[in-house]
Amino acid sequence: MQNPSAVLYSPGTVKIEDRPIPTIQDPHDVLVRIAFVGVCGSDVHFWKHGGINGKVPPPTGLIMGHEASGTIHEIGGEVTSVKVGERVAIEPGIPCRRCKVCKDGKYNLCKGMQFAAAPGELPGTLARFFRVPEDFVYRVPESVSLEEAVFVEPMSVAVHAVKMVDIRPGETVVVMGSGTIGLLCAAVAKQFGAHRVMLVDILDSKLEFARKYLGCETFKPGMVSAEENAEGLLKQLGVDGVDTVIEASGAAPSIETGIYILRPGGKYVQTGLGRPKIEFPIVTLSEKELLVRGCFRYGSGDYELATSLLTRGIIDVKPLISSITSFGDTSQAWDKTMRGEGIKNLIRGVQD
Amino acid sequence: MQNPSAVLYSPGTVKIEDRPIPTIQDPHDVLVRIAFVGVCGSDVHFWKHGGINGKVPPPTGLIMGHEASGTIHEIGGEVTSVKVGERVAIEPGIPCRRCKVCKDGKYNLCKGMQFAAAPGELPGTLARFFRVPEDFVYRVPESVSLEEAVFVEPMSVAVHAVKMVDIRPGETVVVMGSGTIGLLCAAVAKQFGAHRVMLVDILDSKLEFARKYLGCETFKPGMVSAEENAEGLLKQLGVDGVDTVIEASGAAPSIETGIYILRPGGKYVQTGLGRPKIEFPIVTLSEKELLVRGCFRYGSGDYELATSLLTRGIIDVKPLISSITSFGDTSQAWDKTMRGEGIKNLIRGVQD
Amino acid sequence: MQNPSAVLYSPGTVKIEDRPIPTIQDPHDVLVRIAFVGVCGSDVHFWKHGGINGKVPPPTGLIMGHEASGTIHEIGGEVTSVKVGERVAIEPGIPCRRCKVCKDGKYNLCKGMQFAAAPGELPGTLARFFRVPEDFVYRVPESVSLEEAVFVEPMSVAVHAVKMVDIRPGETVVVMGSGTIGLLCAAVAKQFGAHRVMLVDILDSKLEFARKYLGCETFKPGMVSAEENAEGLLKQLGVDGVDTVIEASGAAPSIETGIYILRPGGKYVQTGLGRPKIEFPIVTLSEKELLVRGCFRYGSGDYELATSLLTRGIIDVKPLISSITSFGDTSQAWDKTMRGEGIKNLIRGVQD
Amino acid sequence: MQNPSAVLYSPGTVKIEDRPIPTIQDPHDVLVRIAFVGVCGSDVHFWKHGGINGKVPPPTGLIMGHEASGTIHEIGGEVTSVKVGERVAIEPGIPCRRCKVCKDGKYNLCKGMQFAAAPGELPGTLARFFRVPEDFVYRVPESVSLEEAVFVEPMSVAVHAVKMVDIRPGETVVVMGSGTIGLLCAAVAKQFGAHRVMLVDILDSKLEFARKYLGCETFKPGMVSAEENAEGLLKQLGVDGVDTVIEASGAAPSIETGIYILRPGGKYVQTGLGRPKIEFPIVTLSEKELLVRGCFRYGSGDYELATSLLTRGIIDVKPLISSITSFGDTSQAWDKTMRGEGIKNLIRGVQD
Repeated sequence: MQNPSAVLYSPGTVKIEDRPIPTIQDPHDVLVRIAFVGVCGSDVHFWKHGGINGKVPPPTGLIMGHEASGTIHEIGGEVTSVKVGERVAIEPGIPCRRCKVCKDGKYNLCKGMQFAAAPGELPGTLARFFRVPEDFVYRVPESVSLEEAVFVEPMSVAVHAVKMVDIRPGETVVVMGSGTIGLLCAAVAKQFGAHRVMLVDILDSKLEFARKYLGCETFKPGMVSAEENAEGLLKQLGVDGVDTVIEASGAAPSIETGIYILRPGGKYVQTGLGRPKIEFPIVTLSEKELLVRGCFRYGSGDYELATSLLTRGIIDVKPLISSITSFGDTSQAWDKTMRGEGIKNLIRGVQD
Repeated sequence: MQNPSAVLYSPGTVKIEDRPIPTIQDPHDVLVRIAFVGVCGSDVHFWKHGGINGKVPPPTGLIMGHEASGTIHEIGGEVTSVKVGERVAIEPGIPCRRCKVCKDGKYNLCKGMQFAAAPGELPGTLARFFRVPEDFVYRVPESVSLEEAVFVEPMSVAVHAVKMVDIRPGETVVVMGSGTIGLLCAAVAKQFGAHRVMLVDILDSKLEFARKYLGCETFKPGMVSAEENAEGLLKQLGVDGVDTVIEASGAAPSIETGIYILRPGGKYVQTGLGRPKIEFPIVTLSEKELLVRGCFRYGSGDYELATSLLTRGIIDVKPLISSITSFGDTSQAWDKTMRGEGIKNLIRGVQD
Repeated sequence: MQNPSAVLYSPGTVKIEDRPIPTIQDPHDVLVRIAFVGVCGSDVHFWKHGGINGKVPPPTGLIMGHEASGTIHEIGGEVTSVKVGERVAIEPGIPCRRCKVCKDGKYNLCKGMQFAAAPGELPGTLARFFRVPEDFVYRVPESVSLEEAVFVEPMSVAVHAVKMVDIRPGETVVVMGSGTIGLLCAAVAKQFGAHRVMLVDILDSKLEFARKYLGCETFKPGMVSAEENAEGLLKQLGVDGVDTVIEASGAAPSIETGIYILRPGGKYVQTGLGRPKIEFPIVTLSEKELLVRGCFRYGSGDYELATSLLTRGIIDVKPLISSITSFGDTSQAWDKTMRGEGIKNLIRGVQD
Repeated sequence: MQNPSAVLYSPGTVKIEDRPIPTIQDPHDVLVRIAFVGVCGSDVHFWKHGGINGKVPPPTGLIMGHEASGTIHEIGGEVTSVKVGERVAIEPGIPCRRCKVCKDGKYNLCKGMQFAAAPGELPGTLARFFRVPEDFVYRVPESVSLEEAVFVEPMSVAVHAVKMVDIRPGETVVVMGSGTIGLLCAAVAKQFGAHRVMLVDILDSKLEFARKYLGCETFKPGMVSAEENAEGLLKQLGVDGVDTVIEASGAAPSIETGIYILRPGGKYVQTGLGRPKIEFPIVTLSEKELLVRGCFRYGSGDYELATSLLTRGIIDVKPLISSITSFGDTSQAWDKTMRGEGIKNLIRGVQD
């Protein structure tokens, strides 16, 4: 097969098929030979439910995958920033570059966004080759493995979230949810200068990992009200309120607790996705004059910073790699993630 | 009586009593002879329910009132910014000036705040005299009546709300709720450069007043879902989404509609207070990467700007004055407001 | 001639020549038939000195002009935002859209910028036709003449300058220099909420025009030191220091005066260009903790806002139109501007 | 002597005199028994020239010193944040708390500021006792020596400077001048997330110290033009321009080089003080749209953050302590600093 690709058709139905090798269409395009692809919660949602937010694969199937690293295979005529053979992390969403939000520096909100493995947008990265403009690949040096380079994607999610609440040196930050994104948000918050970072999760194993990985404080909420959990958490921290909450679980009780633990003037960002509507303590928002922000993917400068944090060795992601599955066994990596096994499961690109 | 004061004891029980004239305690204090006091929704809540948020008057009663104007009656030994006889608007909450939020320029969030007519804090302004530091009175020129000067308080609420969402020239702004605060938020938003302002209310009479007072667009939500009202509102405006929403009603359906009408990257501020918890479309917050802010009273610079907007004739508040009740008939002004009569009802200060 | 163009070869040498009609190259391109072109100080510098900042026309000559309006003559296959026949203002600089500053929302700083009438970049607008991407034209309604539409360019310069110093409602602003840019900066500053605006110039006629056009305060510096002029200016305003200075003259004494009149924490933006190095009171900068910003052309959102200010009738530019010269007499408009005649001199596009 | 104090009368004339022990005047005052006082450039300027910026000691002399640590000796009746015997760093400037800039969160710009050892303001810290409000002392734990606690003052200067240019994670920062402030600015910039920091100085010994202390890059300017030094510096860094420059020397050539090395959109802060006026490349400011800020002392939150950086062991200041002189030999510490000996020379408080 020239361009073996992992194509999803419906819940639980994925096939490895040969698809045409993408060709350079714009002189700034590059073709990347995929090395590794990470599994993310949205992949698993697709795998299990055959879609997400009402979007389903077309009858012709959907090539999956959007967290990826690889090597430059071919470059367009005007490409100057990378050379064939260079190793890169891939930013998998290409904005229109022409609309108001693009020109305003907020391209993650572009309505014309073409994102990998999104139905009706771009094919995914689970193929031998992936085409992308040169300014959406980010070089990594020899000191960083291509397995690690996959983490530029989730780390960019964390960088974006941390920027949304403008974490400043000296802050006390609580991260709700200790999955890959929660852990990386905590690690990034420290690099933005947070002096205290606490991770919250309901699983002891996750908190234990967090303590070992980040040396941070942890809190396990009990089977009590959000108000009581908030009180317990603050008591453990020894403060009246925290500066910033990063909600990375999407769970309703966690959202409510997050609002209660903030100091007057505190900041909150929602990165986790759960039920579309939840009970929200709106009067607390007013009385403490809180800042609450949504957060969508990553935008200008996020990949650059995540790449720098990784390639300078500032954040070590090796402990987060839980397994590497071969390309042909893609669905095993999804199953593993669905069962909650490991932190980040990787799929090795096509080998030959 | 030396210092007749309107003292609330319990729901529906108010007495005009003589209380000691407050004395200058700090060399920067001034004593204001009250001219007019405005009635606000929280006064009415106290009057009806005998308290607010679980706070009730002490057994010795609570002097009511916090929106007020007057003339300087006496000044402390180090006062330089005002003279006896000058006419002023009063900012009725005095922060501690020492804590972190005070020194950080956010004194409205001070835990040591002493606010007029708040149980356990300061006596209210419904008395002949009110004591306050010189930097919490704001001079108004002869061209502005003391009736109008009362409006510096609610206009400061509006200024603060508009600042919280950082309204910028060119924006399209929707204000939910067309009471005094909603109207003033709309007027202030225009002064911050909003090019289109729409007021939303369920009462035709309020929308009619808004159109006449501000020349703005209006929308009356129907008895349909928040999604449908959002769609109808945007269709009327002819836009895909609005830049900023100021929620000044506190009503749950209005909050939800407010979130749905925002463009990606849009901004929302909650000024109205209603039920403590409401259903909130949190995934919409994330996907549109919205900014949502609480908003509490007013802070640094808000009174200065509101005073300037009033005294330069930029915002005319005369049409908002609905009635003036004499000091002895205070409860009639509260009743009027409770019945929803008029926009802003005033109480004349003690006369002699 | 198919595409008559005003081509500059050297100081004082301009020829009307036929140049090939530009063709749609990208499906998002449009072709504009030029209606009016404004004369700007940089045009005159080219005309007089045959270049600017060491940049000179190539041997094949340089088509001049960058402030322009026109009608859509032809559109590329994917153009959706404008139709043939629509009337537009033109933003004359096209960034690369791919570099870090472009993606960061600061495309005016793009190193790959292609600007009209800049040697080595794009041909100018002084021709029958000008090609530009659809997102760099801005529709104007019938209520606005194409003469007025030319002013979107200088008004965007003013919008950008005002944004650089983040003028906020209530501020006292001083604009140094009362040419087109100074006048428009003052007008825009008022729309950003400035409560007092003062224009400074050394020519009585300019100040008189400013007072009539804007109803603003004015100050004429004397033949004294910058310190003394600063003192006199502040005395006239009756304040200790002003919030913001917009320097639109580029003259060294004016820059120095501008720094002296600022309050502690004040803001200053340099829009005027003069000598490359000047004497600068750096210790005053430190002691008053001033903010000083450079300002280069216009960027994201500036044209949108300027178009809205013009088309909604918020800023009236008709009084600024001083003369209209026919296309064949282009050099007369330059000479007029060089002699300081009028505020803004326009050149009518090719007629047939 | 009850309260031995180092009193300056004129250049080179200092006497140890007994002065009355300051008494608690406000219930929030505390009395600190001074442990150590640091010598700063401004002390030496006073010592050498008998004044600074035209301010000279009164005929009754001026108690010197403003960088200081100590233990709480006595507290006023309403003090709750510290107890007698606790060890503290002292913030030596007390604002009025009432003016607009104070309430706006910028108290370092307060015109009513009372600063230690400033003629006409407060006595200095070179005495046995110093009186200060409780919110201007900052507790340090046992793990931090009182010698180290002195560094909270210069570190607050650095924190303030770094905040003024809003250094963000990933930035490349150049610090001009490698004295105490330059070194601390570099250390703080790293804590704000700078990924590359370069120190510039003309003395090899200072650069060597910087490399050892901070592990940072260094550059020694040559006897060439500012343009050439800028070119050499950028070549060494391998970049086209740097994100941020912190100028901590005050030297004119250094200021000019600092402007030239910035990227378009770059940021510059002036912390060093030198000649009042210098040649400044103003057109470069405009064309690169630079941000240039003055910087004056420290303000809200700066001492808190500096204390946290010190007490958490994030920034180690022990290597910066060059000498400790006894109280009686104060002038020897000044002489040493005047000769450029050491990084930071300390004076031990009165012992008994």
